[in-house]
Amino acid sequence: MSHNTFGHLFRVTTWGESHGPALGCVVDGCPPGIRFTHAEIQALMDKRKPGQSRFVTQRREDDVVKLLSGVMTDEDGETMISTGTPISMLIENTDQRSKDYGEIARSYRPGHADYAYDVKYGIRDYRGGGRSSARETAARVAAGALARKVVPGLKVRGALIQIGKHKINRANWDWDQVDQNPFFCPDAAMVPVWEDYLDQIRKAGSSIGAVVEVVAEGVPAGIGAPIYAKLDQDIASLLMSINAVKGVEIGDGFASAELSGEENADEMRMGNDGKPIFLSNHSGGILGGIATGEPVVARFAIKPTSSILSERQSIDADGRNVDVRTKGRHDPCVGIRAVPIGEAMIACAIADHYLRDRAQTGGRS
Amino acid sequence: MSHNTFGHLFRVTTWGESHGPALGCVVDGCPPGIRFTHAEIQALMDKRKPGQSRFVTQRREDDVVKLLSGVMTDEDGETMISTGTPISMLIENTDQRSKDYGEIARSYRPGHADYAYDVKYGIRDYRGGGRSSARETAARVAAGALARKVVPGLKVRGALIQIGKHKINRANWDWDQVDQNPFFCPDAAMVPVWEDYLDQIRKAGSSIGAVVEVVAEGVPAGIGAPIYAKLDQDIASLLMSINAVKGVEIGDGFASAELSGEENADEMRMGNDGKPIFLSNHSGGILGGIATGEPVVARFAIKPTSSILSERQSIDADGRNVDVRTKGRHDPCVGIRAVPIGEAMIACAIADHYLRDRAQTGGRS
Amino acid sequence: MSHNTFGHLFRVTTWGESHGPALGCVVDGCPPGIRFTHAEIQALMDKRKPGQSRFVTQRREDDVVKLLSGVMTDEDGETMISTGTPISMLIENTDQRSKDYGEIARSYRPGHADYAYDVKYGIRDYRGGGRSSARETAARVAAGALARKVVPGLKVRGALIQIGKHKINRANWDWDQVDQNPFFCPDAAMVPVWEDYLDQIRKAGSSIGAVVEVVAEGVPAGIGAPIYAKLDQDIASLLMSINAVKGVEIGDGFASAELSGEENADEMRMGNDGKPIFLSNHSGGILGGIATGEPVVARFAIKPTSSILSERQSIDADGRNVDVRTKGRHDPCVGIRAVPIGEAMIACAIADHYLRDRAQTGGRS
Amino acid sequence: MSHNTFGHLFRVTTWGESHGPALGCVVDGCPPGIRFTHAEIQALMDKRKPGQSRFVTQRREDDVVKLLSGVMTDEDGETMISTGTPISMLIENTDQRSKDYGEIARSYRPGHADYAYDVKYGIRDYRGGGRSSARETAARVAAGALARKVVPGLKVRGALIQIGKHKINRANWDWDQVDQNPFFCPDAAMVPVWEDYLDQIRKAGSSIGAVVEVVAEGVPAGIGAPIYAKLDQDIASLLMSINAVKGVEIGDGFASAELSGEENADEMRMGNDGKPIFLSNHSGGILGGIATGEPVVARFAIKPTSSILSERQSIDADGRNVDVRTKGRHDPCVGIRAVPIGEAMIACAIADHYLRDRAQTGGRS
Repeated sequence: MSHNTFGHLFRVTTWGESHGPALGCVVDGCPPGIRFTHAEIQALMDKRKPGQSRFVTQRREDDVVKLLSGVMTDEDGETMISTGTPISMLIENTDQRSKDYGEIARSYRPGHADYAYDVKYGIRDYRGGGRSSARETAARVAAGALARKVVPGLKVRGALIQIGKHKINRANWDWDQVDQNPFFCPDAAMVPVWEDYLDQIRKAGSSIGAVVEVVAEGVPAGIGAPIYAKLDQDIASLLMSINAVKGVEIGDGFASAELSGEENADEMRMGNDGKPIFLSNHSGGILGGIATGEPVVARFAIKPTSSILSERQSIDADGRNVDVRTKGRHDPCVGIRAVPIGEAMIACAIADHYLRDRAQTGGRS
Repeated sequence: MSHNTFGHLFRVTTWGESHGPALGCVVDGCPPGIRFTHAEIQALMDKRKPGQSRFVTQRREDDVVKLLSGVMTDEDGETMISTGTPISMLIENTDQRSKDYGEIARSYRPGHADYAYDVKYGIRDYRGGGRSSARETAARVAAGALARKVVPGLKVRGALIQIGKHKINRANWDWDQVDQNPFFCPDAAMVPVWEDYLDQIRKAGSSIGAVVEVVAEGVPAGIGAPIYAKLDQDIASLLMSINAVKGVEIGDGFASAELSGEENADEMRMGNDGKPIFLSNHSGGILGGIATGEPVVARFAIKPTSSILSERQSIDADGRNVDVRTKGRHDPCVGIRAVPIGEAMIACAIADHYLRDRAQTGGRS
Repeated sequence: MSHNTFGHLFRVTTWGESHGPALGCVVDGCPPGIRFTHAEIQALMDKRKPGQSRFVTQRREDDVVKLLSGVMTDEDGETMISTGTPISMLIENTDQRSKDYGEIARSYRPGHADYAYDVKYGIRDYRGGGRSSARETAARVAAGALARKVVPGLKVRGALIQIGKHKINRANWDWDQVDQNPFFCPDAAMVPVWEDYLDQIRKAGSSIGAVVEVVAEGVPAGIGAPIYAKLDQDIASLLMSINAVKGVEIGDGFASAELSGEENADEMRMGNDGKPIFLSNHSGGILGGIATGEPVVARFAIKPTSSILSERQSIDADGRNVDVRTKGRHDPCVGIRAVPIGEAMIACAIADHYLRDRAQTGGRS
Repeated sequence: MSHNTFGHLFRVTTWGESHGPALGCVVDGCPPGIRFTHAEIQALMDKRKPGQSRFVTQRREDDVVKLLSGVMTDEDGETMISTGTPISMLIENTDQRSKDYGEIARSYRPGHADYAYDVKYGIRDYRGGGRSSARETAARVAAGALARKVVPGLKVRGALIQIGKHKINRANWDWDQVDQNPFFCPDAAMVPVWEDYLDQIRKAGSSIGAVVEVVAEGVPAGIGAPIYAKLDQDIASLLMSINAVKGVEIGDGFASAELSGEENADEMRMGNDGKPIFLSNHSGGILGGIATGEPVVARFAIKPTSSILSERQSIDADGRNVDVRTKGRHDPCVGIRAVPIGEAMIACAIADHYLRDRAQTGGRS
């Protein structure tokens, strides 16, 4: 709805700038009785946290989530139970390096929102990107951690499948590999390639784009809606809302353009257990906007980090030509840390539709 | 918000099934004083209308839009002026061929929403796809015709750039060609290739996917918002809401994954007229979710029509294995008629953000 | 959300002017499988219909509701079943008396929206009040007819309890009387008093205010929410949205101001059947914004019709002083026809909260 | 929209329980460039703060608002400037008296939300009323402080006009008196009467209802909308959302029921300065849902505090009959502290409509 809120029934409002005292979110509409631990949230936060390897920004943030409302602690002193009231979560900013922002306060960094932002608002918190900083996504991951709990049996996993021109070999896909390397890479053979490649880019002060794939299993068949609340529509919307994302695909995505109707049809048969089986999943688990029960598969492309050491031509707020190079701590490939964010967005979309389906159809699906 | 409404301030609610008496939309939030003629709406409707060539469905619909509210007629007896109240538009269904739906009433057509729809609602208007029919998009085009008028100077144009493996040569791009052939193809050299190719597909009772590109010029710099109301996010959402769309790109899209930060930077300089100039437009006119003033460029992939003559394996509502072939009048490439629909969706997204910007910043951009 | 839509999950969008070809509404979010007949809707429409007695406007409208989408007809050929898609309902305007609007097109009728409307929009359909006409409420009654069906066991009834200074004797309250007189009056003894009184007012070309009370039984305990979606809040909002309403009360309403905490407490005991019993209902069936299961009781005050025959001082659109008297067909007491409208609004609010509760808590209440 | 958010373009989301670590709100949609000081917010917070006199609860809270995002500090080091991003405000709970809640954790206090809440959610933070505590209204006052700044020239003032049967004499109305007594009473002669009366009630451990009136001056003519976004509708909604409110009136309110059309007409004349003048304001500044430019006048009735020392019959969560008396620190007349809350709600409604008008009509009004 509004500019800093997403979701209709599982509603998340985020707030905060990169260099303010804190950032956070309010999750409204979480059903009562959802059980989770602080450790479960924190484990997901840690996947996105900066400073985890030499391939991501060296900013150091603990990203500890404080829960301020909407939960009671169970008798074990550890499990939290949602009460149905809004859950406010706060994350302090601790590593706001004091530096001279004089230059970029006035100059527009190419590829960043600086120019467009100034045109819109006429005032801009330039420190660390302000509201446009990717630090905002910490709040998304926290909200996504709750969303995963709302839908029984939901499992959402993401992986990085391409950096620059280097794509994984899908035949090597192994989910167990994803947490074994700093790239969330499911193809063990690709890891050393990416390491070498990113080291070069990092040392050159350059950056590179990437592609992330997220797969959600256990999505109840029937959630979604046929027209303007297609499940894939809301997934596309939320993935595109992640900083630096420029493309989104569901199922076969752009490859569908080259398929015939015969090839693209996901044929069905009744299984031995009396349940319908899909013989393929070109649709990525969604037909006509509604989940089929097959895994939901989405991909998104992330452009290279705009903060690079090479000088680029730009202008400043006074309308003068300037050359800008962006010093500081940056991710050479923001796609890496986009993996847990993509997971969070998809978990939130599914949780929202799960509740919406319960409203309209009584959750018959 | 709800399942059949999109937009926040330029709000469109559509209704209607393929085989009911009519379909239509209500456009709420249109500013007062917007002037347009019925002929202007109808010209856009005609672009989407079935039966225009042998490459689209042979269903015959006039698709005449009746305006039922929200406008007054000017003294010339022709120009309509919006009054600021909801504009209700109605399109009658006239060519609902009476046929026996007995078979598909129970069988789930592969690739269609039939199965997912039944799981969700437990009741389904199977005639012509019911609510999931692409006839719903007629209402979108009517709404889009108004949206184009809301933003002064806005120009939104689309083209088909790929059918199957056959992609246009972008060096040949000529907007004037687009209305000269039945494909909305901007590359004259590609037209005969597509004709032959689609004739084969049509005769085989098969179908094929496609890619559409839409370019919006005159988008005011500053519209959009940095977090969950990114202009590209809402464009992605609305494009993905079109039937059969499986992928969406903004600017360089998935190709961004292969770019370095140096390549991707849209550098700027002050122009001779004292206005900022972008030296490239990798971003597709949107940075950090906010319009830069450059042309907004979006692409979307459409899967092949699921209705094909070849038998495909499926199940029916009683859980029996069946083989389904879909007779009747179908588009061999739904991508063709998706061009005006994509234009409409982008016009609506831009109109909505134009009004939202006016609310928050007073339209300073 | 938007200006012509209400409800969050049972969403109603109305459109249409008094003197256009038609008016109507789109009901979005109605669950699938709701069964109703056209006659049931029409019976409620007839309660609001003009021309039913000499005490209401003599405009003659059939107010026949056409259902254009969202339903299938059952095998009996009569019962309609909602499919879960938007239900579009249309009511034609048939008695638009052709008259010279020259005068009031420019003059602002005191007590009407004319002046404020022109300030806002700068353009106004002055014929019959345009969008501000009470004819818009026909669409509300149609939507309310569906809303009543959404909540199993819901019974919503209204009555007129005061005209001018003449209040009913609550000791005489008899619901069976309500349909026996042209005033929806539950007190048989008051009917002749009101007849004489309104005849005088009518003959004098004057008008008078009134108070309506609506009681909803069968409201599931637990619907509503503690903060900004209080059930009474949404009832107040929708009642205040009815033309000419100037006050709303829930339960004891303004009389609560004179009560002590001891008097106001709705004490409870367990009933013999093991269910909780409230010993009184000062709260009007809502505590802390949530339904208690007791009857929901709401009242609203309607100001006198602003259209009167006596001249009143005003100005015109050119800033000149003018004296205005409003000829034509008017209700001497708009409160009468407000009864079915109030019922409809409360039915819609309850249906909406019923679905919202189902979303958040699984409908455990 | 959602259950803990209100407003469409000036959107406020509140969160927090009475006995959690903190409560707060996120204000989204505030225009950029709004200037205010922390002291201005705090002055309004202090009006609502507990412990200010013997006539309100003795809970001691500083209610200091921390601004966590969405503002930059001007060069004077004091003035804050909104940046257009969400403004997060946090208020710590400091006086959460540790006591044994064992009893009321299980028993339902008559007149409170306890029973309805348990039916709905099945889990309840019983400490101090949890989410239903009036402490939530602190966040509303903070949001209202910003809302007042959004509309240039807006002045919103409230007063208590009735406690129990003791109504002020409107002839004595003096706004300067309002801040001179602990009741926000505009009638100096009534102050000693209320003092004696409330002392009795307080000593008896009883409570009493009240009526508040709020007047907003400087409301731009033209804001509001004719159908479901009537300005009075949204005011009614927000006033009814305040804990314990049972009735709302605009302008003459329920007294309108006794007026004739002649009496109720707010006649107009052109003033000497060439601007329209209303000769009366029965409408309370709103006609047909749209502001006329006259002062907006609203009243609301607050029921007596449900927490009283006398035993009252009730049941507990185990379905047993119990007798409940509510010890602790309570307001004998919650109506007193409702004055600044009512002001905040009306300021927020006006700010929201001001922005909505700017969107649809370009703020021409």
